[in-house]
Amino acid sequence: MTQEPTLTEIREAAERIKPFTHRTPVLTCSTLNDMCRAELFFKCENFQKAGAFKIRGATNAVFSLEDGEASQGVATHSSGNHAAALALAARWRGIKAYVVMPENAPQVKREAVAGYGAEIIFCQPTLTAREAGLAEVVDRTGAAFIHPYNDYRVISGQGTAALELCEEIPGLDVVMTPVGGGGLLSGTSIAVSAISPKTHVIGAEPERADDAYRSLHAGRIIPPTNPDTIADGLRTMLGDLTFPIIRRYVKNIVTVSEEGIVTAMHHVWERMKIIIEPSAAVPLGALLTKRTAVAGERIGIIVSGGNVDLENLPWHN
Amino acid sequence: MTQEPTLTEIREAAERIKPFTHRTPVLTCSTLNDMCRAELFFKCENFQKAGAFKIRGATNAVFSLEDGEASQGVATHSSGNHAAALALAARWRGIKAYVVMPENAPQVKREAVAGYGAEIIFCQPTLTAREAGLAEVVDRTGAAFIHPYNDYRVISGQGTAALELCEEIPGLDVVMTPVGGGGLLSGTSIAVSAISPKTHVIGAEPERADDAYRSLHAGRIIPPTNPDTIADGLRTMLGDLTFPIIRRYVKNIVTVSEEGIVTAMHHVWERMKIIIEPSAAVPLGALLTKRTAVAGERIGIIVSGGNVDLENLPWHN
Repeated sequence: MTQEPTLTEIREAAERIKPFTHRTPVLTCSTLNDMCRAELFFKCENFQKAGAFKIRGATNAVFSLEDGEASQGVATHSSGNHAAALALAARWRGIKAYVVMPENAPQVKREAVAGYGAEIIFCQPTLTAREAGLAEVVDRTGAAFIHPYNDYRVISGQGTAALELCEEIPGLDVVMTPVGGGGLLSGTSIAVSAISPKTHVIGAEPERADDAYRSLHAGRIIPPTNPDTIADGLRTMLGDLTFPIIRRYVKNIVTVSEEGIVTAMHHVWERMKIIIEPSAAVPLGALLTKRTAVAGERIGIIVSGGNVDLENLPWHN
Repeated sequence: MTQEPTLTEIREAAERIKPFTHRTPVLTCSTLNDMCRAELFFKCENFQKAGAFKIRGATNAVFSLEDGEASQGVATHSSGNHAAALALAARWRGIKAYVVMPENAPQVKREAVAGYGAEIIFCQPTLTAREAGLAEVVDRTGAAFIHPYNDYRVISGQGTAALELCEEIPGLDVVMTPVGGGGLLSGTSIAVSAISPKTHVIGAEPERADDAYRSLHAGRIIPPTNPDTIADGLRTMLGDLTFPIIRRYVKNIVTVSEEGIVTAMHHVWERMKIIIEPSAAVPLGALLTKRTAVAGERIGIIVSGGNVDLENLPWHN
């Protein structure tokens, strides 16, 4: 897939991943509506297989491979939700998955990846070591590299969550997603702008990792500088495939403080009784702190995931 | 309502409370199915209004009152979910609610009750003081006393959760609920035995508050002795209205250790990404530790509530 995806590719992805993934529910909460003075619709990817939207892109990529290509397996470098998702998708297809992971990755993430049957290759916790580790694995095995976000098959897969949301809740004024590398935001923006051109797509990111905000304003990709945020899924920089899509279709990027993220996450746990990870709380955090919403607007939020270390919550010190 | 309720009264309750309460979803989890070697269906009352099934019984009781009776308000003694539920139901009807509460009740529970507009009357943390406080309030105001569980209107209301579960998932082999005072279990057992006579109804309680287990075996109500359990909703004893119903319709009571409760709660948070309170984890805890299930059985579980102090979780010390 070498051409930028359109709604057609997202619909194809939706068909391809349907046998494996959940059609996640859309939940509402009157207390949070009151707090934001808007009508919020939470697309709950925290209930998705492997606990995050990432399985959509990974499954689309893995099942897009020709048989010959697939037989060599797939590989990636990630310590987060994409690694677990790719491992699970590979298991579904019956092929090998190789994951290059920094040796200081949390135990819980290692276990998730290993639990789905992937082979883990540990490396030093630097970008150089990670890329070298990946190159070595691909050389040795012939595995197909599936990038966590800078891959059109992955972008198409991530867009399927917004496709479902727009089908279920028509006429949204806004759709918001968190933005890290931009896979979810770019896929969402393609789907939403095609289905519902009047709906604004807004990305939300931590103030401490506001590279997407700065990139959009500068008109070029600016890497994050020391992205020290609790929203660990959003520390990555935009890719050369995701950035042009975001520039074209995304209305704007809003940012939120660390405190705003934790408060929003706590509100969702307390009021909605669902577990979401810090990255997933970023859009609501922006709504609550920046008064981004116009009163009465209907706002869809892609709740990106629910993989949290329950032994180490941000409101415990 | 002086006669023991039947399915008719539970259906009437369902109609009465429908405009106010949620029809909660039934969720499944393949990992927990594998762990129990059974097929589990979780009726999620943690997503219910005020965060627990208690709103069903309270709303049915409050809206069963004649206008004249209702105009004097309602009163109860409780520091838990029933107090918040009664306060909210009274607000819906536009009448006063009086809640007698021990002065050492947790701040979070006081705030919930006060937040729904009830008047709180504090008392010493003893049963005598609580009953004296209630008598004084009822004398002074003429409010109708709505017992947390030993009341046929409350029992009928609690039975509506099982009614919805049986409608949505026919042919269950077992329905399980936690048991404290027996309101939920007795209402559930009436509904299930009428709709699906072959389905076994099983109560689950903490080993450290196993008064229902002992009462059922002794054939008379035995009060709990020092019920020191994390499942704070289950420390109460059976009532003279709930006990005969439970004796007639409930197959048996199973018990679970404190460790089993916490482990089950943790599994649900981690795997299902939903927040449930310790009392709600008791049935699953029994399934996981006592191998109560027969392989392949279809088991419905009423997840009683999700009101947890997020600052004080049982896996933090």
